[in-house]
Amino acid sequence: MYVLTKTTETELNKVQATIAKELASEKIIQEIYEYIFNVKGKKTRALLCLLASKASEVKPNSRIALASIIELLHTATLVHDDVVDESERRRGTKSVNQVWTNSYSVLMGDFIYSKAFILMVKLGITPILDELAKATNDIARGEIIQLELFEKKQLIKLDDLLKVSYLKTGRLFEASAKTGAMLACKSREEIKTFGLLGKALGTTFQIKDDILDYEAFRLDTGKPAFKDFREGKITFPLYFALQNANKKNRRFLLSRLGQSKLLKKDQDIIYQLIQDNKTQKEVNALLEKYTKETLKHLNKLKHHACYNEMLDLITFSKIRKI
Amino acid sequence: MYVLTKTTETELNKVQATIAKELASEKIIQEIYEYIFNVKGKKTRALLCLLASKASEVKPNSRIALASIIELLHTATLVHDDVVDESERRRGTKSVNQVWTNSYSVLMGDFIYSKAFILMVKLGITPILDELAKATNDIARGEIIQLELFEKKQLIKLDDLLKVSYLKTGRLFEASAKTGAMLACKSREEIKTFGLLGKALGTTFQIKDDILDYEAFRLDTGKPAFKDFREGKITFPLYFALQNANKKNRRFLLSRLGQSKLLKKDQDIIYQLIQDNKTQKEVNALLEKYTKETLKHLNKLKHHACYNEMLDLITFSKIRKI
Repeated sequence: MYVLTKTTETELNKVQATIAKELASEKIIQEIYEYIFNVKGKKTRALLCLLASKASEVKPNSRIALASIIELLHTATLVHDDVVDESERRRGTKSVNQVWTNSYSVLMGDFIYSKAFILMVKLGITPILDELAKATNDIARGEIIQLELFEKKQLIKLDDLLKVSYLKTGRLFEASAKTGAMLACKSREEIKTFGLLGKALGTTFQIKDDILDYEAFRLDTGKPAFKDFREGKITFPLYFALQNANKKNRRFLLSRLGQSKLLKKDQDIIYQLIQDNKTQKEVNALLEKYTKETLKHLNKLKHHACYNEMLDLITFSKIRKI
Repeated sequence: MYVLTKTTETELNKVQATIAKELASEKIIQEIYEYIFNVKGKKTRALLCLLASKASEVKPNSRIALASIIELLHTATLVHDDVVDESERRRGTKSVNQVWTNSYSVLMGDFIYSKAFILMVKLGITPILDELAKATNDIARGEIIQLELFEKKQLIKLDDLLKVSYLKTGRLFEASAKTGAMLACKSREEIKTFGLLGKALGTTFQIKDDILDYEAFRLDTGKPAFKDFREGKITFPLYFALQNANKKNRRFLLSRLGQSKLLKKDQDIIYQLIQDNKTQKEVNALLEKYTKETLKHLNKLKHHACYNEMLDLITFSKIRKI
């Protein structure tokens, strides 16, 4: 398992304390808010931001504030995603739309988004505000493109998937690393490198996420298996499986795609088709490609205080089972 | 009918041109975006902002930009509201969730919100960013409180309704007037007065909106009648009607409240109960009270370039039929 340094662990706990702290005057808001933030996510984006902003000159409080803002933005997108995906579970527990309703999810997402913007204004650094507003816009763009894309099914191209992956996931990773570096007043060149590192890491992260959605069938990942598949999402492993399957198997996959209930025997076949040698080789090569790209950018940051921890994070993103 | 001055009309047209202009690289986003903004709303909030920011020293472009930002924020809340209210129509046409789906509405709302924040950052005035981020948060708060409130039904208090009215509607009117005054570099005292005027005007506007929801049964307001009632919303006229009705009629109203389909004979009875003398007197007195309060604040702005137009807007808000 991935071990954080003591300092970073303490910082992440402070992020958790910051985002969980909401003194809403209304009981209902307080209740839903606490429900959402009692469950701790991995906070990968906050961690990335904390690492990129490491520098002796930066006030620790503003680093915690920025990492918290990023975690709030990310959580807001998750709360809205649950409505879009009609998800029943999130982070191992029932999603807000299940305990309350879709309406509460839409409005609590807006509440959390705007809370993040209030904190951003308080932080008061215009280029950071600009980057995060643009990232938020790109995430929404990515989700809309994805919605339309999945209607195309087998006509999807790898480039489409990579674009959606970047907008949905890579973009906020990019912004987390970039704004962290901005906060630490790094040079223009270094801010750019951090951005590229974040972008590549985000894609690595998404590819691994897609793989784990199928692996969950055999492994205990803490998440239900085939969630993406049941939601009709063509992800990287399925994309390659559809390319490599014969006509009959392709038809089978497409016929089951998007069905919320899957028979045990169908699950076995789906898993087997994803496990196909060529498919596994291709999806792992893609994961390797983006890991290498992330490391290439990290290589330019050898002198940076975050180097070792960033290396651990990149390695973890590739091999993680959760 | 309410007549705008030539200058203000030109400015509002520029606001429309600004918000309608979106060069999304994706066809689907472009399509939904144009669908939303092809329908022109009344733009009362943008108008309020344009009036409050009138001053010879202010660059016209920034006034149009700010008014456009406010209109974008307002539209984003409408797109999300349609999901919350399960609305079928908006501004005389099918709502986004009807033409596309709820998922598209959630994500397009987020897209428009974040676009507004991008433009705010570009405008680059921190107190304005702060006020608008807080207003956005308060609107979400108001909507959440309203969701819970309507489960209470006859236990709702007038103060609850006034609070929700303020957060849902008054708050953005307040922010529109306040940020307009900020842009025009008015004194602290004047910014405060504009804020209070906006707040009172927003409540006036909401009370009139609630009245028109029932009036639409007899008048051509361009909106369907009893929309609030069908959505289970207790608004100002219904609040008083429930107070004044006898036990049998109160039971009748509560039994029909929230039903999406209402028989013609039920509609007649509902309308009659709202038309009750005491109810009409009370709801009109409330409308009068907030109109007077708006005028009281306007009275402090007699020297201001917007005085006459603001007076027209206030009068219109009270007597309007659309």
